[in-house]
Amino acid sequence: MFTTAHKPPYTAVIFTSVRPVGETAQVDGYSEAAQRMDELAREQPGFLGNDSVRDENGYGITVSYWKDEHSARAWKQVQEHLHAQSTGRKKWYKNYSVHVATVNRAYSG
Amino acid sequence: MFTTAHKPPYTAVIFTSVRPVGETAQVDGYSEAAQRMDELAREQPGFLGNDSVRDENGYGITVSYWKDEHSARAWKQVQEHLHAQSTGRKKWYKNYSVHVATVNRAYSG
Repeated sequence: MFTTAHKPPYTAVIFTSVRPVGETAQVDGYSEAAQRMDELAREQPGFLGNDSVRDENGYGITVSYWKDEHSARAWKQVQEHLHAQSTGRKKWYKNYSVHVATVNRAYSG
Repeated sequence: MFTTAHKPPYTAVIFTSVRPVGETAQVDGYSEAAQRMDELAREQPGFLGNDSVRDENGYGITVSYWKDEHSARAWKQVQEHLHAQSTGRKKWYKNYSVHVATVNRAYSG
């Protein structure tokens, strides 16, 4: 289930990425690392939620929510996460983008 | 392809939604409306990009990017879009959430 609205302001990190599809993508260690990063993120101070969707063409959007900019930046610097980011750039992603944003309004229905 | 980084600040509207899966979902008019809304959004003043991913379980994340908060709000009020939002709440989505945020940093790789 997706993260519900919290009381603004807080921080959203929008990560889009394109993965290869096919057999190679099944065995490059990405799935295991993605699951581990999700678990590790949830243990970090200021973590509010992590929503992730990837379609059959390899297009993915992940949005993680944090109490503030400080906690989002701290997560980026966690050693195991730094290693995953590096592997992502070299091996897992054809391309990616990151948007760090301050949530001003949020609602669920 | 996903929207690349623009020069901050600008506005991101993060829309998460859960759709039913299966036969009914194929014939409820959602696909046509989603495509039409994408086209219509691209015609609006201040539009910067629209990234959308939905997986096979019906989980979707769409992020639209706008020049500023004003243009994002104006898009929300476009008549045809208001109608789609209403139909979405009544018929297309099991649940949804909206986060409106100001992008402070953005980069692509």
